[in-house]
Amino acid sequence: MVRVRKQFRDLASPEAAHETIDSLALDPDTETVSLADSRGRVLAERIDAEMDVPGFDRASMDGFAVRARDTFGADEMDPIELELAGAVHAGSEPDVEVEPGTAVEISTGAVMPPGADAVVIVERVEERDGSIAVYKAVAPGDSVMPAGTDIAAGARALGPGTRITPREIGLLSALGVDEVPVRGKPRVGIVSTGDELVRPGESLRPEAGQIYDVNSYTIAAGVEEAGGVPELYPHAGDDYDEMERLLRRAADECDLVLSSGSTSASAVDVIYRVVEERGELLMHGVAVKPGKPMLVGTLGEGSAYIGLPGYPVSALTIFRAFVAPKIRDAAGLPESRTATIEGSMAVRERYAEGRMRLMPVGLVADDEGELLVYPVDKGSGATTSLVEADGIVEVPPDVSYLAEGETVEVQLFSADVRPPAVLGVGEDDPALSRLLDRVPSTRYLAVGSREGRRRLRDGVPDVAVVAGDTDPDEVGVELGGWTREWGLVVPDGNPANVTGLSDLVDADLRFVNRDTNSGLRTALASALGDLADERGSTRHELVEAIEGFDRTTKAFESPARAVLTGRADIGLGLRTSAESLGLDFVSLGDQPVRVFAAPERMEKPGVGALRAALESTADVIDGLSGYHTRPRE
Amino acid sequence: MVRVRKQFRDLASPEAAHETIDSLALDPDTETVSLADSRGRVLAERIDAEMDVPGFDRASMDGFAVRARDTFGADEMDPIELELAGAVHAGSEPDVEVEPGTAVEISTGAVMPPGADAVVIVERVEERDGSIAVYKAVAPGDSVMPAGTDIAAGARALGPGTRITPREIGLLSALGVDEVPVRGKPRVGIVSTGDELVRPGESLRPEAGQIYDVNSYTIAAGVEEAGGVPELYPHAGDDYDEMERLLRRAADECDLVLSSGSTSASAVDVIYRVVEERGELLMHGVAVKPGKPMLVGTLGEGSAYIGLPGYPVSALTIFRAFVAPKIRDAAGLPESRTATIEGSMAVRERYAEGRMRLMPVGLVADDEGELLVYPVDKGSGATTSLVEADGIVEVPPDVSYLAEGETVEVQLFSADVRPPAVLGVGEDDPALSRLLDRVPSTRYLAVGSREGRRRLRDGVPDVAVVAGDTDPDEVGVELGGWTREWGLVVPDGNPANVTGLSDLVDADLRFVNRDTNSGLRTALASALGDLADERGSTRHELVEAIEGFDRTTKAFESPARAVLTGRADIGLGLRTSAESLGLDFVSLGDQPVRVFAAPERMEKPGVGALRAALESTADVIDGLSGYHTRPRE
Repeated sequence: MVRVRKQFRDLASPEAAHETIDSLALDPDTETVSLADSRGRVLAERIDAEMDVPGFDRASMDGFAVRARDTFGADEMDPIELELAGAVHAGSEPDVEVEPGTAVEISTGAVMPPGADAVVIVERVEERDGSIAVYKAVAPGDSVMPAGTDIAAGARALGPGTRITPREIGLLSALGVDEVPVRGKPRVGIVSTGDELVRPGESLRPEAGQIYDVNSYTIAAGVEEAGGVPELYPHAGDDYDEMERLLRRAADECDLVLSSGSTSASAVDVIYRVVEERGELLMHGVAVKPGKPMLVGTLGEGSAYIGLPGYPVSALTIFRAFVAPKIRDAAGLPESRTATIEGSMAVRERYAEGRMRLMPVGLVADDEGELLVYPVDKGSGATTSLVEADGIVEVPPDVSYLAEGETVEVQLFSADVRPPAVLGVGEDDPALSRLLDRVPSTRYLAVGSREGRRRLRDGVPDVAVVAGDTDPDEVGVELGGWTREWGLVVPDGNPANVTGLSDLVDADLRFVNRDTNSGLRTALASALGDLADERGSTRHELVEAIEGFDRTTKAFESPARAVLTGRADIGLGLRTSAESLGLDFVSLGDQPVRVFAAPERMEKPGVGALRAALESTADVIDGLSGYHTRPRE
Repeated sequence: MVRVRKQFRDLASPEAAHETIDSLALDPDTETVSLADSRGRVLAERIDAEMDVPGFDRASMDGFAVRARDTFGADEMDPIELELAGAVHAGSEPDVEVEPGTAVEISTGAVMPPGADAVVIVERVEERDGSIAVYKAVAPGDSVMPAGTDIAAGARALGPGTRITPREIGLLSALGVDEVPVRGKPRVGIVSTGDELVRPGESLRPEAGQIYDVNSYTIAAGVEEAGGVPELYPHAGDDYDEMERLLRRAADECDLVLSSGSTSASAVDVIYRVVEERGELLMHGVAVKPGKPMLVGTLGEGSAYIGLPGYPVSALTIFRAFVAPKIRDAAGLPESRTATIEGSMAVRERYAEGRMRLMPVGLVADDEGELLVYPVDKGSGATTSLVEADGIVEVPPDVSYLAEGETVEVQLFSADVRPPAVLGVGEDDPALSRLLDRVPSTRYLAVGSREGRRRLRDGVPDVAVVAGDTDPDEVGVELGGWTREWGLVVPDGNPANVTGLSDLVDADLRFVNRDTNSGLRTALASALGDLADERGSTRHELVEAIEGFDRTTKAFESPARAVLTGRADIGLGLRTSAESLGLDFVSLGDQPVRVFAAPERMEKPGVGALRAALESTADVIDGLSGYHTRPRE
């Protein structure tokens, strides 16, 4: 039975949302797993020892089992001789009794033979023919571990709620427990609701507006991490009857059903209908950014429903803040100690919307290993910000800004999340991709050379990569670099017979440019300036003559790909891109690509690793057309 | 090929042992897993985007796709009318083109139809019959997310070595990647070598000296936690030919083979033989306590061998310190941030053996949540210390003691290990077991009333449980308690017709006692004192007359079980034990069992939870014969 607490207001407070979600019943049944599969699970009930460990009086040293009384008075000067009556080894049953005046050879771990009450260790004995001479008296119990010494039958071994780690598995092994009663994992169904969504691995028709479903697998992984069992339901596309059937099936099979925001009103209608017909809508909307459209309800007996926002970072944020704690709680798993860490704001961040903000943030360590926290993904909805966002900072409604240096608590998206060894920003470049592969745990944001320079100055990243001429002193400490050949990418065979920049201006060709942060764009602008000077014209006039000068793209290969697919006749790019895509290339020059570090981060191990990797620039650029190493300055 | 660094000295230094183990090649091949199974794995190679995300120019708002130029000049006063030419929805291909003077209805996420270069949002438009009035001019690109804005084809998405958490799964989903190249997990074979060992789940013959195999499953769980794949080989018992075959098979199938110390010299001989015939012995013995007998070698091409000590805590200690880091490294997984924590020594600890000590320690939080660290399992080999030991402290050879309050670094046995909410010590009692079930995350060490009082005074535990009369002021703050009926447990039907303590002294009966720390033993001693006074004798004389007075056992039910199995005629115990085992009982009185807290720990939440649980003492003792609640003092 699902217990409910109804919370209806236009926008519920975050506290009320937590309470409503807490009120959902999500208690999986106890299950039994094999010992080998019990790691990470939570014990459902107390385990008492059902047997003594060891189950017999055990010799704790190699030596001779004796009646202690027989050895009384023995010493170095006056040994006592005992007749040797046999031997007992570990793992075998004694077939001999220790009568007065006799001894039995015994190995560590063996069962004490009847009659014996002590062991004389082998070092205190001289072996003779058929007898032993004991050089030291022993007391009853010496070198004997009585049955039940380790664990006695009836004793409490482990309590309910114990998290099973290797050591608990050890204790359970000792007790011979091979079937372990553990708390069940809550079953969480994930229903995918966008018409345009396609599952990874299936073929995509971008021309029909299809995109891959990001949230289903992301949330499934989050459910698993929180200790639940995710169940991905097939995607119903725009078949709303099928979607309704799937929702009903998920409600029957799962303890909790999740979906994430759909752009389709019809899909939302289906969800509302199923929630209202079978269960109850408990909450629509929470006064928190993001997550305003969050839905909470029941889907009849035994199943709850939570609707998450659609943007990937927002979905993960709301999942992390509201849903994962509930799943963990149902699974009996405490939150990982690493899931929350402290850091200080790297920049000042304003916010004043009067409702709580769950601010996605990235982390970077400074030179002393202290964590700096910076905001990312300000509502852009970009999937790439998923890997830039390490966690969230809860900003209360009455806080209007966070000061630079202010200490904040970061709820990590995953206990496994770590700050990168190096945080880099700047130009994108194929040689750079290879270089970064050689430095473990780097994070690189391809924001372009201009924005990269700006961010390095603002003090967040460790390094910036700048393509084109720049004043090194204005950027940072140069760690190394290379040159690359840039120019115009044209179709194979150069059908328009482009020979230089003049043709870009004069011929009637559809052009694709890069964005203004790109070092390639800067180089083009500079070359157009030179051409304008030559022609006695202005750069503006030349630019106006180029069709598509404002068609900008995000990555170094994008214009070339536009040429490849016929979307453009000519694109700004690199010789290496043209060659790798089988296109022709008209060179306009070489430009340096240089890696600069923030001076105060030079001692960071990751920066050192990057610097070391730059020693092998020749390897890094090997096979890239138009690339050259250049001496460090 | 296994690369080796030979280290031969009588006892290798710990540093040399690390180096030797580092030199073992343990590099699993890359494998491919499905996206859904990739969480927690490590990316084997760089993932570049092979497509633009989104793969099309996408409307980012609900509205109307237009040619921006057509809207120039539109404002509130002077709207521009455009003919409505159709509609495009998310997930479908546009079947209409935007000609000059026309507009097409479009929903968020839909493909921009040919001809359109901007979206006028729905709020800026008045819909008319077959046309729209645009009240605001838009610029080209307004409310449009161009193809590749999120991720551009050719861009670096994730680097090799990236740990895959939910957010990386999100990015991979966006790129349509459903098969993920990840680093393989090293395969670790576990060979069990003691003659006397039996696998949990199999039947045990204690009379033949058999015990359950503790280390195999413990180490297997540790291997799994470190990112390896454990492979448990069948137990060969004392069949050495079979054991040799298993070792060879393990060497062929695994990257690393582990065994843990055997008490059997023959088993060790088999290991030596296989290592020497197929590979090379690189190290025998390390100057570290425990772990002196550690073996390191190779087992021919492609497999390494490490022999661990036999005591469970020692095996886990050496595994944690030397083997787990190697497995993690091979798996590409960094050590969890939580795997090492700081605390301060709760007691002074001496040590002066001139070699490094890996000291097993327990953790307890003080009232302010600061971690206190105390040594456990001083070489006892007890399995129970497995769950008392939270991790290890490395004590360098030249340190002769650790001072109370000194800060130490604890390497936890598992990142999931946490200090208990309450650490209790003292008497064992069936009602106490039930009480503890009601307080999450308790750790209780049944060391007896006397030792419990002593430890509470020494400042380590939070609470002590004392059975029998005691001066509360000398112990701590009383939280609550009950009384229990104690006496003599005799066989069903009371064949020797025992009626009181006199019979224990006078009749010729084999007795089983409890240890001197037990509150039951204290009660018995006191009753014997009274009897001696009555008889004008001494307690010593009475004790001398009891056969087996020195046969002590560890748990409250142990003497009763000895009576049940005929190993004794009479035992010290509780009415409830006698009744639950179907035995007879001769009452000698009631004794209080009381829970005392250290005054300075009264504010600990766990102590509060225990105190709250004690409010329900009546429930706790319900059904236990001879138990009564008693008023709190």
